[in-house]
Amino acid sequence: MFELPTLTVGQYSLVYNMLSFTIASMLAAFVFFIMAQSRVAPKYRISLMVSALVVGIAGYHYWRIFGSWEGAFELVNGAYEPSGEPFNDAYRYVDWLLTVPLLVVELVLVMALSRAKQGKLLTKLIIASAFMIALGYPGEIADDNVTRAIWGTASTVPFVYILVVLWGELGKAIESQPERPRVLLKNIRYLLIATWGFYPLAYMAPFAGLTGAGAEVVLQVGYSIADVAAKAGYGVMIYAIARAKTDADGWVKPEQVTGQEATA
Amino acid sequence: MFELPTLTVGQYSLVYNMLSFTIASMLAAFVFFIMAQSRVAPKYRISLMVSALVVGIAGYHYWRIFGSWEGAFELVNGAYEPSGEPFNDAYRYVDWLLTVPLLVVELVLVMALSRAKQGKLLTKLIIASAFMIALGYPGEIADDNVTRAIWGTASTVPFVYILVVLWGELGKAIESQPERPRVLLKNIRYLLIATWGFYPLAYMAPFAGLTGAGAEVVLQVGYSIADVAAKAGYGVMIYAIARAKTDADGWVKPEQVTGQEATA
Repeated sequence: MFELPTLTVGQYSLVYNMLSFTIASMLAAFVFFIMAQSRVAPKYRISLMVSALVVGIAGYHYWRIFGSWEGAFELVNGAYEPSGEPFNDAYRYVDWLLTVPLLVVELVLVMALSRAKQGKLLTKLIIASAFMIALGYPGEIADDNVTRAIWGTASTVPFVYILVVLWGELGKAIESQPERPRVLLKNIRYLLIATWGFYPLAYMAPFAGLTGAGAEVVLQVGYSIADVAAKAGYGVMIYAIARAKTDADGWVKPEQVTGQEATA
Repeated sequence: MFELPTLTVGQYSLVYNMLSFTIASMLAAFVFFIMAQSRVAPKYRISLMVSALVVGIAGYHYWRIFGSWEGAFELVNGAYEPSGEPFNDAYRYVDWLLTVPLLVVELVLVMALSRAKQGKLLTKLIIASAFMIALGYPGEIADDNVTRAIWGTASTVPFVYILVVLWGELGKAIESQPERPRVLLKNIRYLLIATWGFYPLAYMAPFAGLTGAGAEVVLQVGYSIADVAAKAGYGVMIYAIARAKTDADGWVKPEQVTGQEATA
């Protein structure tokens, strides 16, 4: 547990508004992924369902983080001082423990591989991503940088393993996809790296001596942006892939077919 | 940050009730846009989904603004004095950052242009509208009018660019639409100008020396009316366009087709 710094009104409000921005984004994405299911072929709908779960879970956690942030500070003489209530940043770990495995599930499901291939890939990726989060947690709550470094390193092993699977086995499966989905699937792996890459950087901030008000603000704003991109933005890309695959499959909505016949 | 004024009971209640009116309008519009999807041809439903997201996001933010307004004042000897809690007007900016790009998305999507044309128009308009909002924010929270004027002017550049695109490229695309949707599309652009025009006027109020209780009330009531018109009212017009295009396409609901056969 690190001591909370005293924040200016501007610093406090920036984090406050970014947390609220994230709640709004996650809730809107939740509604969209549920409604957008009807726009893709039935076999891709499970991916959109999982996307909805991810942003729904994240929306819940940001609601909690927002409340915890509000309670952890109080306005005294024009500055936000720690109120004595702890700011429970661990909501993020609980969130990742649930959402990170689901994010790899989304990606594998939208490819609609054979059941045997899909099962093997999912098992590997789900176990690795759960280990990645669980191993990072003891370091995050540790007071000293040595414990932090040890657990952080342990957590890097499954992280690297996930990247190997995504670029190895999943890479081969991506090559067998139709053209437009193939391009999108390659792009989404980069989005995944770019957004997931923020978390280890934030984790290492204390090693670089980055503490105090400025670091806290950068951390909270960075986490919010990374989470919106890695969950809502990522889900929109999964939707785009599902749409492209729906087109490539030549699937047409039943109501569209009936409608056209009626006017013929 | 401007100091909050002391308000009469009437002034406080007027804003309070307008904020609640806006919450009710946005929630009702949310439910309507979701239900009304089945009344338009499948290709226009995405527009109605986006309309639902816009009013849903706005409903969330007005819920927060309402709570913030309640907390920022306390009744002392028959007048509403500032309680010391800040009134977080920045929720409006967070809201616009999400909803303004979506409003132009609605408009482009309901036209059902070719995928290439649509993609180009959307990219331009989304980027310009995000810049418009983001550039206004530093001026809005600034204490001095010079900073306010500089950022306000910067924000006007993308605003003018959006108007040029709507009347230029989009204008050409509108001309190729069937008659009834064409008229509605031209009207909706005027609604957009009229409602969006309120925001820069409100932004400039401090330059005209409009501060204090009266100005605060006019500002909050004005924002609420502008938001209901620009989001819920605008969405209803998008629905009308989608209906007109559905008719022009000769699309008939599958259930209606079956119904006709049954009574034949």
